Amino acid sequence: MSKKLTKRSEDYSKWYNELVVKADLAENAAVRGCMVIKPYGYAIWEKMQAELDKMFKATGHQNAYFPLFVPKSLFEAEEQNAEGFAKECAVVTHYRLKNNPDKKGQLIVDPEAELEEPLVVRPTSEAIIWNTYKNWIQSYRDLPIKINQWANVVRWEMRTRLFLRTAEFLWQEGHTAHATEAEAMEEARLMNQVYADFVENFMAIPVIQGLKSPSERFAGAVETFCIEALMQDSKALQAGTSHFLGQNFAHAFDVKFATKEGGLEHVWATSWGVSTRLMGALIMTHSDDNGLVLPPKLAPHQVVIVPIYKTDEERTAVAEKANAIKQELDQHNIRVHFDNRDNYKPGFKFNEYELKGVPLRIAIGPKDLEKDQVELARRDTLTKSFVPTAALTAEITQLLNTIQEALYKKAVDFRAAHTTSVATFEEFKTVLKEKGGFIAAHWDGTEATEEAIKKATKATIRCIPLEGDLEAGVCVFSGQPSKQRVLFAKAY
Amino acid sequence: MSKKLTKRSEDYSKWYNELVVKADLAENAAVRGCMVIKPYGYAIWEKMQAELDKMFKATGHQNAYFPLFVPKSLFEAEEQNAEGFAKECAVVTHYRLKNNPDKKGQLIVDPEAELEEPLVVRPTSEAIIWNTYKNWIQSYRDLPIKINQWANVVRWEMRTRLFLRTAEFLWQEGHTAHATEAEAMEEARLMNQVYADFVENFMAIPVIQGLKSPSERFAGAVETFCIEALMQDSKALQAGTSHFLGQNFAHAFDVKFATKEGGLEHVWATSWGVSTRLMGALIMTHSDDNGLVLPPKLAPHQVVIVPIYKTDEERTAVAEKANAIKQELDQHNIRVHFDNRDNYKPGFKFNEYELKGVPLRIAIGPKDLEKDQVELARRDTLTKSFVPTAALTAEITQLLNTIQEALYKKAVDFRAAHTTSVATFEEFKTVLKEKGGFIAAHWDGTEATEEAIKKATKATIRCIPLEGDLEAGVCVFSGQPSKQRVLFAKAY
Repeated sequence: MSKKLTKRSEDYSKWYNELVVKADLAENAAVRGCMVIKPYGYAIWEKMQAELDKMFKATGHQNAYFPLFVPKSLFEAEEQNAEGFAKECAVVTHYRLKNNPDKKGQLIVDPEAELEEPLVVRPTSEAIIWNTYKNWIQSYRDLPIKINQWANVVRWEMRTRLFLRTAEFLWQEGHTAHATEAEAMEEARLMNQVYADFVENFMAIPVIQGLKSPSERFAGAVETFCIEALMQDSKALQAGTSHFLGQNFAHAFDVKFATKEGGLEHVWATSWGVSTRLMGALIMTHSDDNGLVLPPKLAPHQVVIVPIYKTDEERTAVAEKANAIKQELDQHNIRVHFDNRDNYKPGFKFNEYELKGVPLRIAIGPKDLEKDQVELARRDTLTKSFVPTAALTAEITQLLNTIQEALYKKAVDFRAAHTTSVATFEEFKTVLKEKGGFIAAHWDGTEATEEAIKKATKATIRCIPLEGDLEAGVCVFSGQPSKQRVLFAKAY
Repeated sequence: MSKKLTKRSEDYSKWYNELVVKADLAENAAVRGCMVIKPYGYAIWEKMQAELDKMFKATGHQNAYFPLFVPKSLFEAEEQNAEGFAKECAVVTHYRLKNNPDKKGQLIVDPEAELEEPLVVRPTSEAIIWNTYKNWIQSYRDLPIKINQWANVVRWEMRTRLFLRTAEFLWQEGHTAHATEAEAMEEARLMNQVYADFVENFMAIPVIQGLKSPSERFAGAVETFCIEALMQDSKALQAGTSHFLGQNFAHAFDVKFATKEGGLEHVWATSWGVSTRLMGALIMTHSDDNGLVLPPKLAPHQVVIVPIYKTDEERTAVAEKANAIKQELDQHNIRVHFDNRDNYKPGFKFNEYELKGVPLRIAIGPKDLEKDQVELARRDTLTKSFVPTAALTAEITQLLNTIQEALYKKAVDFRAAHTTSVATFEEFKTVLKEKGGFIAAHWDGTEATEEAIKKATKATIRCIPLEGDLEAGVCVFSGQPSKQRVLFAKAY
C-alpha cells in the first residue's frame, strides 16, 4: 500500500493497471483474460447497477433472465450477428469429466459425453432472446416487450485489460420488441439518452451522443447509437451503445405479429447495453497520480473518519466524537465510514483512502476536540480546512455536491481543450500526434476513406454526433463532399 | 389464460409445471435443462435478492465477483469437491467458431482453437475462490474474509424441472475465511440461521434447521447445515445449505496465515448458498388450484385495482377514483397496480391476478362510487368484503400483515400434521405410504442403515435437527442404539 503509483505522465497504461489493483478494484484471475472484481470495485459497480436499474424501470422496462448458453443453430441464425461474434466464442462441447485412468486424482473431459450440438457461451443474447420472443408474440397486443437482463457474457478477446476488455464481463442488455419502426427507433434513441444522463449525472463523465459509422456498428444492427467519452490520455472510450436492429432478428427467427388492421408483420427490435467497462471510464476520467478519485454519487464511502491519538484515553475520547459525527451524517443519508482500526497508523489510512478515492476525509485528534473542530480534506483538490463541528454536516452536504459538479466541469473543460476542428488531413495528423483527443473533421461517408484514415493514423470514427453542426464541407481525406463533421479519435 | 390448472389432487407435478408457466414465472428454454425466468418470476426473485443482500451486509459480508470458468487443474485440486461435481460439468474446450466450408451460413467449432486446458463452467466456486484467497491471505490481519457472490452456476442434471432442478440456475454463494475453527463453525451456523429467518419471515415458509448426514453433505464439506421445508404434497425440499469446510480447501490450495503468535496455520472456511430453487419452495408451499399465492412481503404487486365499467363516462369516473386510491396506497409504500387496460374484461383480469397470486384485489364499479366503497378480495382465503373508501388504507395495511401471518401459520399447521414420530420400521413405511411428510425416527448413525432405508422406501435423512430432543432410543431399522431422532422424508 505504501508503494507509490507510477505517474500518469510516465506511463499512463501502467498507472491504470497499478491503480486498479492497488485501489482494490479488481485483479487478473487464474483464468486467462478474466478478472476478479474485488469487494471495493464491486461496491461501485453495485451503485451503478442500482441507479441504472431505477432508470430502466422508470422508462417502463422489466428485468428477466435468459440462458447462458446459445445452441449453435440459434447462434448462427442471424448471419451478420453470428459473423461478428463467431471468432471470439467460448464453446461448450462436453457435459462431463471423468477420472483420468492414467493419473490418479486428475480428471479428463469424458469423450463419451460430447454434446450433439455445441453450446456457445453468450457473447450477447439477441439470438436466444428472439428465439424466445417468437413464442411470446402473436398479436399487436403482445407488444411492446421491454425487457432488461443483468448478466455475465463472454467474448474471447486476445488482448485483455482489467475492466476495459476482459474475456468475461458483467453487463446489462436491454432487448425490446415493437410494432413499428418509429417506436423501435425512438426506444433506441431514448435508451442512449438514458445512458448519457446516467454517465453525465452520476459518473460525472461528459459524453457525446452520436451514431456509429456502418463499419463500427454492432453486428446485426441497422443503426447504432453510442455515447463516447474522452479519457485523460486523450483517447476516446465508447461508454455505451443502443442499437436499432430493424427487423433483422425478426426475420432470422420468423417473429411476426397480427396487426390491429388484420395484417401480419415482422417485429421491430432494439438492444442496448453498458458493462463493467464503465469502471474503466470512471477511473480514467477522474483519477490522479495519488489514486482513484470518485464522484460522490458513486462512492461507496463518501466520507471517512480517521482518528488521531496516542494514548488509550485519547483514543476513547476521539472515538466518542467520531461516533457522534458518524451518527449525524448517517441520519443525513451520507455514506460515512469510521476507520477505528488500531493496527494501522493515520498516515497509512490517509494513503489508503486517497488511493481508494473517498471524496472527503475527516481527521480528528485531541487538539481538535479542544477546539470543537475537525480537519476536512477534499480528495479531488487535495485541499484541507478546519471546520467547526457544528457546521460540519452542512459543509459536507454542500461539498459533496460541489465535488460532483467540479469533477464534471473539469472533465468538460478537458474535453473542450482536446476537441479540435481540422480542415486538412495534414492538420488532422498533426493534431492527433501532438494533442490527441476528438478531431472534428469532414468525412465523405465512405468505408474506404474511414479505413484509409484508420490505416494511416490509427484514429477511427467514434461517432457522427447527433447534435453536430450540419454545415457541409469537403472530406479531409478525399476532398469529396461531406454533410457534417464527424468525430475521430484513437480509442480504447 | 382461461384454461384452468390441473388440480393438485389429480396430478401435483402437472399442477406445478402448469402453474409456473401460466403464472408467467418461467418456461423451458431452447437449451436443454435451462429456463427463461420471465419478468413476473424475476420480480419475485429480485425481492428475495434485495432482502437477502441486506441481511448479508448486516452480518458483515461484502459482494464481489469471481470468474465463470474454472480451469480443470484448479477444479480437481480439492478431490472430494471435484468428485462430487465432475459428472455434471459443462466444459468449454474451444474458443472460436468458423464457417462450415461444406455448408454456407453454418458454423462449426474451429478445431484449431482448442484450449490447452479445458475450462469448467462453475458448478460452485470454492476452487476458483480459494485459489484467489491464497493471494489475499498472509497474516491473521487479513482475516476474516467474508464475501458473497450473486451468480449463475451450471450443473448438468439429467432430469430437470423449472426452478427445482435446472442445468443453469441463479444463486448466491458466500465464501468466508477464518483464523479459527470455532469462528468458521459459528459463521456456518449463523448463515444457516439467516436463511431460516429469511425463509420464515419473508417467504412465510417454516423450516427445520439441522445437520446433514455424512452421505448428504456437500462435496468437500466437513459439516453441512441446512434448512428443510415441507411441501403440500408431503415431500421435503432442501431450501438452503451452509457448509463448514474445515481446512479442506486451505489444504488443497495451500492457504496459510501467520498467526498473532508467530505460527503458520491453514485457514478455516465456510460456504453457503440459496438459489432460484426457493421459487419452487414458494410455489409449492402456498399455492392452490387457482394458481399462485404470494406472501405480501414478496409480492411484486401487493394490491391490484380492477375497474368495472360499461360506458366511457363510467370508465373515467372509476379511473379517477382508482387513481386516487393508488396514490394514497403508494404514499403508504404499498405496492399497488391499477390495471386500466381496456381490451380485457374484468373477469379475465380477476383470473389473471388470481393465477399470479396478488394478495389483495380491489374492484370498483359505478355502484361502489355511489356508496363510496370498494370490493376487496383476499387471494389466500378467496373471501370478499365491501370496505368504505375512507377505511381502505388502514384495512389493507392490516390485511397484508394478516395474510403474511396466516400463510405462515397454515404452513406450520400443515407441517405439524405431517410430522410423525415412529418407533418401528413397519410404522415408518406405513406412515410414509399413507401420509408422507417428515418422519422422526431413531437412526443408528451408519451410512449402511441410511442406504438400506433409502433403498426400501425412497426416503432419505433430510436432517439431524439442531433443536431435536436428545432422548436416546434404538434405530428403527437396525435396533442399534441411537442418540436422537432424525427426520426422514421423500424429497425434491
